[in-house]
Amino acid sequence: MKELIIGIDLGGTSVKMSLVKASGKIIKKWSIVTNIKNEGASIIPDIIQSIRDQLRGMSLTNSDLIGIGMGSPGAIDRNQKTVSGAYNLNWVEKQEIGKAFNDAFAVPFYIENDANLAALGEKWQGSGNDLANVVFITLGTGVGGGIIINNHLITGSHGCAGEIGHLYVTDNPIYQCTCGNTGCLEAVASANGMLLLTQELSKNHIQESAIKQAVLEGKILSVKEIFDAAKEKDSFAMSAVTTFASYIGKACSHITNILDPDKIIIGGGIASAGTELLEAIFDSYDQHVFPKARDKDILTLAKLAKLGNDAGILGAAYLVLSSQKG
Amino acid sequence: MKELIIGIDLGGTSVKMSLVKASGKIIKKWSIVTNIKNEGASIIPDIIQSIRDQLRGMSLTNSDLIGIGMGSPGAIDRNQKTVSGAYNLNWVEKQEIGKAFNDAFAVPFYIENDANLAALGEKWQGSGNDLANVVFITLGTGVGGGIIINNHLITGSHGCAGEIGHLYVTDNPIYQCTCGNTGCLEAVASANGMLLLTQELSKNHIQESAIKQAVLEGKILSVKEIFDAAKEKDSFAMSAVTTFASYIGKACSHITNILDPDKIIIGGGIASAGTELLEAIFDSYDQHVFPKARDKDILTLAKLAKLGNDAGILGAAYLVLSSQKG
Repeated sequence: MKELIIGIDLGGTSVKMSLVKASGKIIKKWSIVTNIKNEGASIIPDIIQSIRDQLRGMSLTNSDLIGIGMGSPGAIDRNQKTVSGAYNLNWVEKQEIGKAFNDAFAVPFYIENDANLAALGEKWQGSGNDLANVVFITLGTGVGGGIIINNHLITGSHGCAGEIGHLYVTDNPIYQCTCGNTGCLEAVASANGMLLLTQELSKNHIQESAIKQAVLEGKILSVKEIFDAAKEKDSFAMSAVTTFASYIGKACSHITNILDPDKIIIGGGIASAGTELLEAIFDSYDQHVFPKARDKDILTLAKLAKLGNDAGILGAAYLVLSSQKG
Repeated sequence: MKELIIGIDLGGTSVKMSLVKASGKIIKKWSIVTNIKNEGASIIPDIIQSIRDQLRGMSLTNSDLIGIGMGSPGAIDRNQKTVSGAYNLNWVEKQEIGKAFNDAFAVPFYIENDANLAALGEKWQGSGNDLANVVFITLGTGVGGGIIINNHLITGSHGCAGEIGHLYVTDNPIYQCTCGNTGCLEAVASANGMLLLTQELSKNHIQESAIKQAVLEGKILSVKEIFDAAKEKDSFAMSAVTTFASYIGKACSHITNILDPDKIIIGGGIASAGTELLEAIFDSYDQHVFPKARDKDILTLAKLAKLGNDAGILGAAYLVLSSQKG
């Protein structure tokens, strides 16, 4: 009986793979090194061989598989099942990944970008509780998003759905974004954005603060140092975290006022600051969300990463299930 | 052969009805007066009788119908097919509309709020060109919206999807919204909002302007007067229209950065200001939208109302088609 799915999370240093049941239970998890030599020519053959070896080791055949789902960096063509511009893999040419997998396994194959798969994984087996309408925001080096409506990823007319990091949240023109616009969420809420925000706020903060002093002296603090100082009641750090959270709260209110999803899940490195951050975000969110949609349970933190699970491989497996439901 | 749909647009003064082909072609259009006497007790029986009479007159039977779709004011329960709180119809009790229609016609019956049906109609037969992902914004007494993803209306976890009028667009606390929040799009871009915006802007406009003078003297201008003066190059009116459009542009950029739809259609009374308004909105939109999604063709004006067609009855018909596609 077909009840197993292969989930693949292709990254620049390793390829994580898993054999997952349709229930979400991970049967087996393994990984191989990503060999980026020779323009990454052996990456896909290595993955295919590794899956074959694993299936053989467990006495499984293609007929046990519902399908194979894969997350990849670069620009994905979901219909052609190709990847272009994945520079961290040294791929120069467009890669015909779907063809390679179809030739090797003759089971349905689906491909998606890795950020969207993390969203799908978290929706399915994480804080999303497998609800139908879930938005996932990652706060890290950049600010990304994934939009799931009626159990399907929304990719958009130009592939730009879920560009949460580029929601306009402040009129202050100093916050230049890498995309070329100003005032984007990413410009104030990515790791670098938070540091820029801190520098800017330090100019007008009146109270005494060790953190403000350090910023004014040109010291480059980590985001963690600022969050930790806020927990220790440093007045400037607290004010910086509140401002940072207010921008995320505004962006989340836009999401609810447009989509009113079941959950907005916040993940990524910065989100590890935990419930204090979530509450600060909610305070701002609550001011801007349409009153009838006010609901403390909508905003939640991602949990898969915290549990040591891999949202990417679970998302790759769910991609197969949701694509087949049509 | 089942190829006909009844579309019903129930309003406070009249009920518009139509017989529509699955292609969108309107075969027949008629209306009856909405009788709100006796707590509106005869409204639904009147509609049912009128449809029976029309079908009989055209020698049609229930077996010719794919289904019946209806737009109603009030709070809709889409599953139970009931309406509550439609005060302009004098309905005090919850109305079991689905039951009445099922008893009378034994064909599939669907009900939706009238604003969402206008969005569906415009998506299907209007400026939406029957594209799968369309957002409709109405600018009028209020600012409303309808979100269509993958040919289906999105209603949201609390029924609040498409509350475009409550997107937060300005930090100025003077712009109080009827919802209780401040800075909502509706607070500056509804008909009343534009007048409040004009009063506020008049305080800081330096150049001479007949319109500014009128506002400062406490004269209540219509939105049309302000738009007309902007076309005549009154400096203050031009500045007011630019500011007004900038808020709508911001809100539209939020929509694209989240959903990247195929079209954002702007309709309602204020939208009749035409292409000048659309261009001013686009100027602001373009500054805030993620660069890869920049596309002048996304923003467009509604056309059904302009053509004298009725977006509501067409939307009611499309509701049947899209619900049956599942």
